[in-house]
Amino acid sequence: MLHDISNNYKASPRPAAEASRGPPGDARTVGAGVETLTEKGFSATGIDEILRRVAVPKGSFYHYFDSKEAFGAELITRYDAYFARKLQRHFDDTSRSPLARLRAFCADAQAGMARHAYQRGCLIGNLGQEMGALPETFRGQLMEVFGDWQARTAACLSDAQTEGELSAQADCAQLAAFFWIGWEGAVLRAKLERSPAALEIFTDGFFAGLTSR
Amino acid sequence: MLHDISNNYKASPRPAAEASRGPPGDARTVGAGVETLTEKGFSATGIDEILRRVAVPKGSFYHYFDSKEAFGAELITRYDAYFARKLQRHFDDTSRSPLARLRAFCADAQAGMARHAYQRGCLIGNLGQEMGALPETFRGQLMEVFGDWQARTAACLSDAQTEGELSAQADCAQLAAFFWIGWEGAVLRAKLERSPAALEIFTDGFFAGLTSR
Repeated sequence: MLHDISNNYKASPRPAAEASRGPPGDARTVGAGVETLTEKGFSATGIDEILRRVAVPKGSFYHYFDSKEAFGAELITRYDAYFARKLQRHFDDTSRSPLARLRAFCADAQAGMARHAYQRGCLIGNLGQEMGALPETFRGQLMEVFGDWQARTAACLSDAQTEGELSAQADCAQLAAFFWIGWEGAVLRAKLERSPAALEIFTDGFFAGLTSR
Repeated sequence: MLHDISNNYKASPRPAAEASRGPPGDARTVGAGVETLTEKGFSATGIDEILRRVAVPKGSFYHYFDSKEAFGAELITRYDAYFARKLQRHFDDTSRSPLARLRAFCADAQAGMARHAYQRGCLIGNLGQEMGALPETFRGQLMEVFGDWQARTAACLSDAQTEGELSAQADCAQLAAFFWIGWEGAVLRAKLERSPAALEIFTDGFFAGLTSR
């Protein structure tokens, strides 16, 4: 649900004369695509609008991507790569206890949403919500992404069991799924309310619930 | 997140000659609007598509509604009225314990999604996710709807405290918010996966977490 992948590219409009400087057109287009899609969604966003943001000509777009569908698939892949890395960086931080690592991720994600005034959500959650209007090929890709994030989270919870922070009886895979189901709901609400409240309520509620397991 | 409001109207296409039978054009249009919007969202749905489903002429639409925005606002109002009634019916069912009432709502909602093969989500959640592309006037309306559902749920949890099912220390308003944040995430995932798994995982996880409070 972070989208700072877009910050890696200068996505603000620039004069055509400058368009050749900075990252290549496909990278700029991906950055602007993530920005626009996490704010407005796939259906509401035209390719023209994305290209205008980065002053990439339409001809170049079709040089990089076969179609809007292919562009969407590429956005999912790159967003997932960026995001899985971010998640894993927290989970690999052994200076903290395993549960503190998951909490640090929540705080980091919340700070990311705050930076964009809670106007951008999660590309994967957004596209999931829009599936009824999207190419069917996206469905499996989005489910795989959630599966991957959940597996990483389950491994962190399993470490928490090893270190005695979480009951040995807890079902880590189930808890990790519960976390991601609810977290995406929280991102949705935070965006609706333009406020961190839902993220805080969900995070606090999730960790409070863990103590019973 | 149920959308069986649409079942109250015959929303399937009918010959123009029959269009005058059955519910009036605005009711049929609302039914078809809820169906289409819970499947595909507001941005991806054209008024023409909705009207074709119910053989209502475009002129009639503008007789009933000033604009697509006014139509959306009316859909939210009617969906909320329908849904709040459904929720309250469960919460008023004193033949069950308070927590069993909330569980019965979850089962009912899951059955509703199953009836539509998990292809329709929650109108309020869907529109919330789309807010970046929607008229700003929807934001307050959607937040009020969640506020109302949460208040009803908090009252049910408060009854659970009175009857000793839930710790007196539990913060019912906070728990009710936690429930709705996560539940909307579960509806989103169930629709993505076309499966009840997310609804079951969230429901089980929520009630398991309660025992610690």
